[in-house]
Amino acid sequence: MKILVINGPNLNMLGTREPEKYGSMTFSDLEKELYEFAFKLDATLETYQSNVEGEIINKIQEALGKFDGIVINAGGYTHTSVAIRDAISAVSIPTVEVHITNIYSREEFRHESLIAPVCIGQIAGLGVNGYKLAIRALLDL
Amino acid sequence: MKILVINGPNLNMLGTREPEKYGSMTFSDLEKELYEFAFKLDATLETYQSNVEGEIINKIQEALGKFDGIVINAGGYTHTSVAIRDAISAVSIPTVEVHITNIYSREEFRHESLIAPVCIGQIAGLGVNGYKLAIRALLDL
Amino acid sequence: MKILVINGPNLNMLGTREPEKYGSMTFSDLEKELYEFAFKLDATLETYQSNVEGEIINKIQEALGKFDGIVINAGGYTHTSVAIRDAISAVSIPTVEVHITNIYSREEFRHESLIAPVCIGQIAGLGVNGYKLAIRALLDL
Amino acid sequence: MKILVINGPNLNMLGTREPEKYGSMTFSDLEKELYEFAFKLDATLETYQSNVEGEIINKIQEALGKFDGIVINAGGYTHTSVAIRDAISAVSIPTVEVHITNIYSREEFRHESLIAPVCIGQIAGLGVNGYKLAIRALLDL
Amino acid sequence: MKILVINGPNLNMLGTREPEKYGSMTFSDLEKELYEFAFKLDATLETYQSNVEGEIINKIQEALGKFDGIVINAGGYTHTSVAIRDAISAVSIPTVEVHITNIYSREEFRHESLIAPVCIGQIAGLGVNGYKLAIRALLDL
Amino acid sequence: MKILVINGPNLNMLGTREPEKYGSMTFSDLEKELYEFAFKLDATLETYQSNVEGEIINKIQEALGKFDGIVINAGGYTHTSVAIRDAISAVSIPTVEVHITNIYSREEFRHESLIAPVCIGQIAGLGVNGYKLAIRALLDL
Amino acid sequence: MKILVINGPNLNMLGTREPEKYGSMTFSDLEKELYEFAFKLDATLETYQSNVEGEIINKIQEALGKFDGIVINAGGYTHTSVAIRDAISAVSIPTVEVHITNIYSREEFRHESLIAPVCIGQIAGLGVNGYKLAIRALLDL
Amino acid sequence: MKILVINGPNLNMLGTREPEKYGSMTFSDLEKELYEFAFKLDATLETYQSNVEGEIINKIQEALGKFDGIVINAGGYTHTSVAIRDAISAVSIPTVEVHITNIYSREEFRHESLIAPVCIGQIAGLGVNGYKLAIRALLDL
Amino acid sequence: MKILVINGPNLNMLGTREPEKYGSMTFSDLEKELYEFAFKLDATLETYQSNVEGEIINKIQEALGKFDGIVINAGGYTHTSVAIRDAISAVSIPTVEVHITNIYSREEFRHESLIAPVCIGQIAGLGVNGYKLAIRALLDL
Amino acid sequence: MKILVINGPNLNMLGTREPEKYGSMTFSDLEKELYEFAFKLDATLETYQSNVEGEIINKIQEALGKFDGIVINAGGYTHTSVAIRDAISAVSIPTVEVHITNIYSREEFRHESLIAPVCIGQIAGLGVNGYKLAIRALLDL
Amino acid sequence: MKILVINGPNLNMLGTREPEKYGSMTFSDLEKELYEFAFKLDATLETYQSNVEGEIINKIQEALGKFDGIVINAGGYTHTSVAIRDAISAVSIPTVEVHITNIYSREEFRHESLIAPVCIGQIAGLGVNGYKLAIRALLDL
Amino acid sequence: MKILVINGPNLNMLGTREPEKYGSMTFSDLEKELYEFAFKLDATLETYQSNVEGEIINKIQEALGKFDGIVINAGGYTHTSVAIRDAISAVSIPTVEVHITNIYSREEFRHESLIAPVCIGQIAGLGVNGYKLAIRALLDL
Repeated sequence: MKILVINGPNLNMLGTREPEKYGSMTFSDLEKELYEFAFKLDATLETYQSNVEGEIINKIQEALGKFDGIVINAGGYTHTSVAIRDAISAVSIPTVEVHITNIYSREEFRHESLIAPVCIGQIAGLGVNGYKLAIRALLDL
Repeated sequence: MKILVINGPNLNMLGTREPEKYGSMTFSDLEKELYEFAFKLDATLETYQSNVEGEIINKIQEALGKFDGIVINAGGYTHTSVAIRDAISAVSIPTVEVHITNIYSREEFRHESLIAPVCIGQIAGLGVNGYKLAIRALLDL
Repeated sequence: MKILVINGPNLNMLGTREPEKYGSMTFSDLEKELYEFAFKLDATLETYQSNVEGEIINKIQEALGKFDGIVINAGGYTHTSVAIRDAISAVSIPTVEVHITNIYSREEFRHESLIAPVCIGQIAGLGVNGYKLAIRALLDL
Repeated sequence: MKILVINGPNLNMLGTREPEKYGSMTFSDLEKELYEFAFKLDATLETYQSNVEGEIINKIQEALGKFDGIVINAGGYTHTSVAIRDAISAVSIPTVEVHITNIYSREEFRHESLIAPVCIGQIAGLGVNGYKLAIRALLDL
Repeated sequence: MKILVINGPNLNMLGTREPEKYGSMTFSDLEKELYEFAFKLDATLETYQSNVEGEIINKIQEALGKFDGIVINAGGYTHTSVAIRDAISAVSIPTVEVHITNIYSREEFRHESLIAPVCIGQIAGLGVNGYKLAIRALLDL
Repeated sequence: MKILVINGPNLNMLGTREPEKYGSMTFSDLEKELYEFAFKLDATLETYQSNVEGEIINKIQEALGKFDGIVINAGGYTHTSVAIRDAISAVSIPTVEVHITNIYSREEFRHESLIAPVCIGQIAGLGVNGYKLAIRALLDL
Repeated sequence: MKILVINGPNLNMLGTREPEKYGSMTFSDLEKELYEFAFKLDATLETYQSNVEGEIINKIQEALGKFDGIVINAGGYTHTSVAIRDAISAVSIPTVEVHITNIYSREEFRHESLIAPVCIGQIAGLGVNGYKLAIRALLDL
Repeated sequence: MKILVINGPNLNMLGTREPEKYGSMTFSDLEKELYEFAFKLDATLETYQSNVEGEIINKIQEALGKFDGIVINAGGYTHTSVAIRDAISAVSIPTVEVHITNIYSREEFRHESLIAPVCIGQIAGLGVNGYKLAIRALLDL
Repeated sequence: MKILVINGPNLNMLGTREPEKYGSMTFSDLEKELYEFAFKLDATLETYQSNVEGEIINKIQEALGKFDGIVINAGGYTHTSVAIRDAISAVSIPTVEVHITNIYSREEFRHESLIAPVCIGQIAGLGVNGYKLAIRALLDL
Repeated sequence: MKILVINGPNLNMLGTREPEKYGSMTFSDLEKELYEFAFKLDATLETYQSNVEGEIINKIQEALGKFDGIVINAGGYTHTSVAIRDAISAVSIPTVEVHITNIYSREEFRHESLIAPVCIGQIAGLGVNGYKLAIRALLDL
Repeated sequence: MKILVINGPNLNMLGTREPEKYGSMTFSDLEKELYEFAFKLDATLETYQSNVEGEIINKIQEALGKFDGIVINAGGYTHTSVAIRDAISAVSIPTVEVHITNIYSREEFRHESLIAPVCIGQIAGLGVNGYKLAIRALLDL
Repeated sequence: MKILVINGPNLNMLGTREPEKYGSMTFSDLEKELYEFAFKLDATLETYQSNVEGEIINKIQEALGKFDGIVINAGGYTHTSVAIRDAISAVSIPTVEVHITNIYSREEFRHESLIAPVCIGQIAGLGVNGYKLAIRALLDL
């Protein structure tokens, strides 16, 4: 099984960015951990990060025919991007949405995800562990 | 580690209730599977189901000092119960919210969870597998 | 044909409670009248009243396989109970919602019924006669 | 007792119009059935249909002193006509609102009836049988 | 100066309709009084009443080139008719809106007039006297 | 008959303030004209202007027992002052609200008058002539 | 192919009505131009205009079985008429909605069309040319 | 005078539950203090606590004819229970609503009490002392 | 302990103003009663009333260093004054908000108090007795 | 005449993406067809597609002085991009907005176009034919 | 150039009032600093502070013909005063709005300024330095 | 001190774009003026402009450790970009938001800035001079 992990804007700053909210693990450490985790579960992983909405859309489109599942943390675009939502709908690859923090205990505008309705599920608030749970969920499918 | 799994109204009808949405596994099968799953991970599990909002509150209050983590699927009370939310706040036991279906692709009134802001995290849309992921998440804490 | 008539909170106070709104017939008189009415139409009736939301859900679940139709006046829970709505959906028994008063000429919050969308129909404002019309409607189905 | 049955816009298309929603009985069949039904109950019936909001108002005004009760299905005007509402208030004849479909499980804008607050009651979702129940309700008054 | 007085739905029921709100003067008495009043002020008056929204629009369109001012009480259409508003805009004849009752102390939906923004002014709550004040206002222009 | 004319904030700038909206007549000219107008109609007039919300309330309170009617243009306080509204309710003197401009064709926040529901009526958009019509309306009462 | 072009309230005033918004072509010129245009494309055209909501509904109903396509500019009823919407749904004839002006750059209440969801498409802001484009679109179907 | 003090969900956790908000006095200490307080003022007190909405309704109904006043802190049900509101209306016993914390400086959804409109008054934010003030208020009546 | 009792607009009309809502005790009687009440409890009282928002702010500012507690009934300013709220925040003197009537059973706009979030508590609906309970609450602190 | 056709995010997936909604014609086929269509009408066409919001803005800016008209289908950015709207305003080139599907019969958030108010017109729901109609509309200008 | 600096309610408490928000500089120190600052830039300054909304309006009116620019911090009236807004419009003197704190990171109700739309600009969140920047901005005009 | 000035979409069109709103100074002239201005105040400046949301985020992230302050005019992204807001939060560099025009006197959707709450302050409506004031404000810090 081949899984694509997409991280949106500002997630590359993990470890630096508000560590009391997002934890102290750096982004490259996270990527490394996810590769090892996938390897143990006999899954192939590719990770991608971009701050540009359109590049995330490009990546999702390119996944068509190449990946069996997508794990996406669209960062700030979660709440504003109809275009990423449409890309997920267009490729019809099972997608799990992940949020490191509990978006429901933060600002009102973070409570609504435009992406959630076209994903199969959502994992929020469980820290970077959420990515692993999402990978597992895709494998369990 | 001791974990309490609470299921709210109508979840006892699992297998019977709208199987195209909730799957065909019965509620007692689910409970059995969770016990086995917890056993493998060296965790102690207790499951509880009630259709009565107040009895769920009683159960949460009684968990104080007895359990290290709670997994809750509050069913229809998710969207209407300030009282269950207050009970979770009152006992301060790490709690993960689970929903079998993707509540974000259903009716508007199911998009808001009154309970989410006081849980550490939420897992939605991943079927009954969500309970296992939640247990794992509590153990990983 | 077997019909279950469920009455929610405060309907047991009929005759005592704000008689200018709800009329002066007592609750036990109403039950008696409905039994006689059903008898004449060759239908079997069971009535149930509870002030506890969860017990109403229990009753609806138990109706599965035992009753061919439900008449429900969920009282104050009409406007707040996602859980009763889910129970009606879960059992898939044809259900008619009844309100003694015209809820549309009362407070704003009484105008919306969470239960209505999963019932086959609604009868409101026709006094205790509404129960009889609902029974008749189920028989006419 | 003399009862006026008013049908608003598009109800003349009954049988033709979206039969999966409105049933396959034609409008003239419905009218015939209602006349027979009223006859059996010793009531005098007159039916009226118009697609013009103002003509419905004219009819309601003319009913003053001629009819003892009105059954109205105002169709699409239900949700937009303050003027029909005012006409019903003006004549003060006991009026029962009928909807063939369950307006509460359809589009949001069909959930609110401007007419309901000035009627004595409402019957919705019980098909063309709703007209008969409404006539009966007026006779039971 | 030639003035057209337009009355919308249900105003023909003046005297009969909820006299505690609208007063006991009949509609024909009102018309007579307005004619006399205009005569004294050397103005020519024509009155028109219809319950049909479209006929009111026809009348407004026909006023173009024939009348110097319009006094309109659009009744229930006040709050719902974009089409009457557009007619007033289209003919560009100075128009004064009149309401017999104080619409601002009645139901919420009567607080907004779709017509007001295209009239030069509005007189509300001063009873049938409001028509006279409106005529005077047009003459004073 | 004794009538008190109250003008609220910025109306003292009449003639200076945005003359394209409020006209070029100065405030003192307006007062003079109103005195003459009242004199002709055998009414006694007192005018009062203040930019201070509380002083307007004081004036309304003092009117109790001294005046038979109030004409008020509360200016910007129209849309924000519960306190002036309460003062008008408290003294129970028939009050007519006047606005020089058509507040319904201006900014959204000018469409709602907190004062209107406790006045007997409102005259808006008819220029300074509105004051005269209001005085006449009070005399006609 | 037979096409019915329906124009709603005030469109008969074309050329006279706010020409800076609606252009200077008169309504009869428009009708003539559309007939010629249809003729060139080998289509049969009928045009209809009414200011009465109910007559427009009558016309739509009568189109059943007679026309293959409808072009409708419902004028002010666009934003208020559930009944016209229901008529279009009832006849199931492919319908294209036209607006001469760009309704999205005008008042807020003109941004929502109740009719749009039951039409196959909408053309707005392209002047009277929009009618031709709509006819072409129906022929291209 | 006989007074019933009703406490809703989670108030039994007083002293344990978020003491920085609710104080450190335990629930049994509170009950003891209230008994003593009532005794000094020659009033008879009964206290009742339940986490179950329906049991609170049962208790209110049973109070009819037995108690002269009710003090209620409905906890989380304050903001969601139409049914408790209806019970208070039904028994018509003078009721004072108490909240230990200042609900107006907490989350938005705690600002609205469904129960307040049917109570004679409300005391909020004055800690457990609020119960005593409420008892006193009932005695002063 | 020194307590300042502030009364806002129209409370000086107590006894005169809508006695069915506010009772028949005059404002000076209330002040006298409060002085006697405070005297018995060994507290020093000063009362202040003004209809001017800014003067109430002045008074609150002057209270700094002179008073240990404030009882405020801000009347109509309760619902509109950010400035009084800021004054209470600025001086940081424990403040209890009082309302004679039950503001939650009156008009919608009276349900929200801008002042409540910066007060320690609120007492509403208990008549003039509310002032005494507020004084007592401050002394009990 | 030179026309620029801009397609936004996910439109490059035409033919692949939800063909039941968007049709089975591929994006390159569409481009080819538009070139041929423009050629026949003696217009010069350039097409552009990007998933990146900012690149679409760049393209619009570069069009200044080079193109006489723009046809834009901004895809998901239609509903979220103030920046594209500002770009269209900035260059002041006549722009027609196109949507393949009827956005008014889809999700609520697709009903509002931020771009529409600065375009001259909009064509929606007429499939890929909409592009041709838009080109024609620009040529007809 | 002559500039008037107006400070609204509670700004006289600067230094005392919540110093963690507003800083520790006293109001008289601020005034002194602004005088010196203006002197260096060859501008004449007058400062004014009042807690009374109407007096601020008086001051703005009196500025007509005397001052070339106004700097205003309307404090709590910023969010509630239509009357101050109207005064600024009436005198047409270039006005810059200043807020010491960042009103956009505070309570929701502080996000909207009724005054901003009639000022030429706004400076917020830059502490007392904002006044100097505003003065400079007026001189740069 | 090193300051980064970021300009968002369409600001590169300054001088060309709606000069009546944005002035006639070109973007390169503005940049030049800001460099000279900074030089005089002994500050080092870097300017950056992009129409791509993600590139602006990249730039903000790269500023970490290199710049002491940021001046940002995010153009249209101001009102829609959670992602830029998150970037500013992530780097924790003091940031001042600038808008050339008074966004509060323009369209409703321009009144809310998603970025403002994470900036230290905002300067709006003071033309290109706002950039200089912002630089000065950062230096004054």
